Amino acid sequence: MARDDKLKLGTFVYTFGFNPAGWLHPASDVNGANKIDHLLNVAKVSEAAKFDFMFVADSPAAAIGDADALARSPTKMNRFEPLTLITALAAMTDRLGFVATASTSYYEPYNIARIFSSIDHLSGGRACWNVVTSDHDETGYNFNRTGLDPHALRYERGEEFLDVVFGLWDSFEPDALLLDRQSGVYYDKDKLHTLNHKGKHFQVRGPLNSAATPQGRPVIAQAGGSEAGMELAARTAEIVFSLASSIERNGAFYRNVKERMGKYGRSQDDLKMMPGIVVNVGETKAEAQAKVDFLIDNLHPDVGRWMLGEFLETDLSGAELDKPFPMERLPKEPKGSKALFEELGDFIRQGHTLGHLIRHYAEKSTGNGITGTPKEIADFMEEWFEARAADGFILMFPTLPASLDDFVELVVPELRRRGLFRKEYEGSTLRQNLGISTPPNRYVASRLAGE
Amino acid sequence: MARDDKLKLGTFVYTFGFNPAGWLHPASDVNGANKIDHLLNVAKVSEAAKFDFMFVADSPAAAIGDADALARSPTKMNRFEPLTLITALAAMTDRLGFVATASTSYYEPYNIARIFSSIDHLSGGRACWNVVTSDHDETGYNFNRTGLDPHALRYERGEEFLDVVFGLWDSFEPDALLLDRQSGVYYDKDKLHTLNHKGKHFQVRGPLNSAATPQGRPVIAQAGGSEAGMELAARTAEIVFSLASSIERNGAFYRNVKERMGKYGRSQDDLKMMPGIVVNVGETKAEAQAKVDFLIDNLHPDVGRWMLGEFLETDLSGAELDKPFPMERLPKEPKGSKALFEELGDFIRQGHTLGHLIRHYAEKSTGNGITGTPKEIADFMEEWFEARAADGFILMFPTLPASLDDFVELVVPELRRRGLFRKEYEGSTLRQNLGISTPPNRYVASRLAGE
Repeated sequence: MARDDKLKLGTFVYTFGFNPAGWLHPASDVNGANKIDHLLNVAKVSEAAKFDFMFVADSPAAAIGDADALARSPTKMNRFEPLTLITALAAMTDRLGFVATASTSYYEPYNIARIFSSIDHLSGGRACWNVVTSDHDETGYNFNRTGLDPHALRYERGEEFLDVVFGLWDSFEPDALLLDRQSGVYYDKDKLHTLNHKGKHFQVRGPLNSAATPQGRPVIAQAGGSEAGMELAARTAEIVFSLASSIERNGAFYRNVKERMGKYGRSQDDLKMMPGIVVNVGETKAEAQAKVDFLIDNLHPDVGRWMLGEFLETDLSGAELDKPFPMERLPKEPKGSKALFEELGDFIRQGHTLGHLIRHYAEKSTGNGITGTPKEIADFMEEWFEARAADGFILMFPTLPASLDDFVELVVPELRRRGLFRKEYEGSTLRQNLGISTPPNRYVASRLAGE
Repeated sequence: MARDDKLKLGTFVYTFGFNPAGWLHPASDVNGANKIDHLLNVAKVSEAAKFDFMFVADSPAAAIGDADALARSPTKMNRFEPLTLITALAAMTDRLGFVATASTSYYEPYNIARIFSSIDHLSGGRACWNVVTSDHDETGYNFNRTGLDPHALRYERGEEFLDVVFGLWDSFEPDALLLDRQSGVYYDKDKLHTLNHKGKHFQVRGPLNSAATPQGRPVIAQAGGSEAGMELAARTAEIVFSLASSIERNGAFYRNVKERMGKYGRSQDDLKMMPGIVVNVGETKAEAQAKVDFLIDNLHPDVGRWMLGEFLETDLSGAELDKPFPMERLPKEPKGSKALFEELGDFIRQGHTLGHLIRHYAEKSTGNGITGTPKEIADFMEEWFEARAADGFILMFPTLPASLDDFVELVVPELRRRGLFRKEYEGSTLRQNLGISTPPNRYVASRLAGE
């Protein structure tokens, strides 16, 4: 039975694309990490194609590792700070949503609540916070720590952080502002609430000095695949950026997360499950493969080792490309994302050479990216969508803007032909376009409940 | 002897102007705290007049006090978050500089270094950080504290915070980026430096994941008038937002701060002393006074008491307007800014009624705002400028945009006629327009020094 909703689509942003050789593509702007024009173009193309949002990944640290490899890999070494990046891009666009990553481990909840509230106002309702607890020891080193905090501690802090932010966002009820010059009263004092949060990690009085936003409150995105991550997503997430593994595993993950939502009083429609997929498209399969090969062939071996090592949280410097993956360098367990780690771990244990693994990862991330014709890619997306393994996709284009341009030119028309993707935006806010409701303001809800 | 440089001018931004009744002025946009159009207009008018910058004041907290008074006073209760506000405004303007306030007490240096670096890139070199340590207990309550930290502790943390930020901004030398697709090398690995800061308040490894900015590094503004504040300004500030007191006192302050700069190897021209003045202009003195009176007459007595109490860090609820200031409510010493407190304290001890004091403060801040004709205002500014009591002014318009419009229409032409203010921007960055040099990158400087 065909679904009656439509696919949601987002453009994943590392400056020059998912492939570390993305910046070597002749169509990319080598100044794109410091001049806005490059990513403004990516935003404008995404908006013209009626995508839901642009998703800005982040890590508040430069990478640590082989200096020669890093000097060839701009992504983590030189990039825009995401909160300010999406603010600038939102100011220069009209309808596209913007997702920015910010870490609960390294910010204060009052600042984050204010910043996203402000972006939501500035953009007319197009802001989304991608909530992460951070990974990699290198982030901890920049924030008074000796490495990454343990997973359980990061989640404990992250959950309390989110609760504080939600509480602050409810400070002003939606109709609190009176703006009445006649009486001189700006807001209804009975509709402004002081939070008085006193928890283990945070003591935050409030209220937030920002009125309810055009979306009611900003949208929440998350990515965690761990047990704690799934539970937090079921309770709070509205976009889940999941790992694309297989239609079966993603279908199970989809159901697992959505079935938990009921106990939090949430409708399953209010969470959009969006696997990240690496998409390489060409008019023919050979042309698509040639585009991938151009990038992978340009991937310096040092960069390949660094890229995979970064992902697996290990140092692969000097490891031989034509030998099997050096298992002794594989950590027993990851400090960061368990799901990502396990997914690629399975592939490693099949005995591939390191060189093969690097090519595989560069092409398909953890395995279910797709290289092919517009029809093949649309088939893939339709199958996952109809099987409820996905409500949409976060598209991890190998190089920007070329891979995005290809997708918009070749795949989007095919998705529209099948009735899978919108021709016009449904609304003016990200929430309206995603088709998700606004969680009720807690004080309004209590009053309605007669409490 | 006439100075051969020109006045610098900045527009001070509370959303609706300095006077809490500013929002009641018919020309202001009552939605201005949540819709960008209002402050975008303020920015565009400031830019068309060739002002140096827009200065966004801030406090990361709603005010605490008489609920009825607060409900009539939007300024601190509902406002844009300044980092995102200036980013959006910069994206929609071309030449105006933007100063945003952010507190060293409630942020992490890695985040602040990144954010301002990013804004400087996004704006093409127009970013300035107004460094504050915060005042008022209400800010501490939102950040895990039982009130404002003691002055000495705030400054100790603030100074170390600034040193970390400066160190991070030097991570990439100015010519570190190679962007060489031929060799595949993005930056020169010998020109990227790891900070490894280990101090009392912060441990920050670095490097910053952002290249040197269009201004070399963002501009630094400060306001502190205490001994520690003056020393920090002499060492690090490029704009000083000082209290306008009297030409004699400001002249002494000007010399005091500038004479300290030599021991830090800085030229006095690299710091612009800019007192904040409240300007009320009319074609005639009577017209100017009528504009002030409109606002002050619209100031509800509760709001007047709250406004002055907020400034003096005391609660004046219910105090009688026609009696002398209730001295028992005046704190022995302020928790926040000492200079502001002392200035108004002198006025209080002259025995004025509370009502008079409120009118005085609303019209002239601490005493040297000016209400008058274009000629009188230009005379005032010229006198302070030529006496080196000021290098320019931060204009605290009572209501926005009306007071700004008046100033641009009536006073700016008079300043230009006298050769005191520019007709065109000198450069494309804030630093170029202010005429201040870029502090040298520490690693380049050591290499040049043969270290």
